Amino acid sequence: MFRNILQDIVEQSEGGISAALMGYDGIAVDQYEKPCEGIDLQLVVVEYANVLKEVKKTVEILETGEMEEVAIRTERFTVLIRALNDDYFVTLTLLRDGNFGKARYLLAKESSRLREALA
Amino acid sequence: MFRNILQDIVEQSEGGISAALMGYDGIAVDQYEKPCEGIDLQLVVVEYANVLKEVKKTVEILETGEMEEVAIRTERFTVLIRALNDDYFVTLTLLRDGNFGKARYLLAKESSRLREALA
Repeated sequence: MFRNILQDIVEQSEGGISAALMGYDGIAVDQYEKPCEGIDLQLVVVEYANVLKEVKKTVEILETGEMEEVAIRTERFTVLIRALNDDYFVTLTLLRDGNFGKARYLLAKESSRLREALA
Repeated sequence: MFRNILQDIVEQSEGGISAALMGYDGIAVDQYEKPCEGIDLQLVVVEYANVLKEVKKTVEILETGEMEEVAIRTERFTVLIRALNDDYFVTLTLLRDGNFGKARYLLAKESSRLREALA
C-alpha cells in the first residue's frame, strides 16, 4: 500500500528518481525508485535519517514549531523530506533540474494518504 | 562590510527577519536581525550550524556533489541556508508566510558578494 503511494509521487513528479517512507531510526518502511546510475539510494535513505534527526532535535530546542519540511540541494540532486508524525517521514529525491515546486506540492498532498496508511 | 550585505538580504526579502554569516564551528562572523518576539536568534544560528555540519557530512558520504542549499520549514519559520565555501555559510530566516522563492533568489545572488568579501 505504501509502495503505490511512493510510486505515484515519483511518477507524477518531474525529475523524481526515488521516494521512501522511513523511520527516524534510518530504517525504510518502503521505497520506490527508478534505476539511476551513480547513487546508492539505500545509503541515501539511511544518511538522510541522520540529517533529519539532527534537524528535529534543533527544531525542538528552538521551539519554532513542529518541523514540516526540509530540502537539500546539491550539485546533482535535490532531496525533499517531509515529516509525517513523530516516528516517520517521507523523502523524494529529484534530479537537480527537476520541478522543485511540483515536488513540494506532491509530497504535501500525498502526506495525508501516507499518514492514513500508517495509522 | 558583511553587515551591509546581510541587511540588504533581509530588507529586500519579503518576510525576512534575520540573516547571518557563519562558520561551521557555530560562530557567527556577522549578523543582521529585525526585532522579533519569541525567538532567540543567537541560539538559532548555533543550532543550525550543527544541522549543516550533519548535512555536509552526509553529502560528502553520498558523493552527490557539493552541498549548495538547505531549507527547513517549521510551523513558524522557514530557514534558508546556503553554503559559501568549506568554512562558511549564510542563513536567512523568514516568517512562515514569507516569499520563499525570492529569498532563494536573493541568497544565491548575494552569495557571490559574500564570497568576495570573505576572500
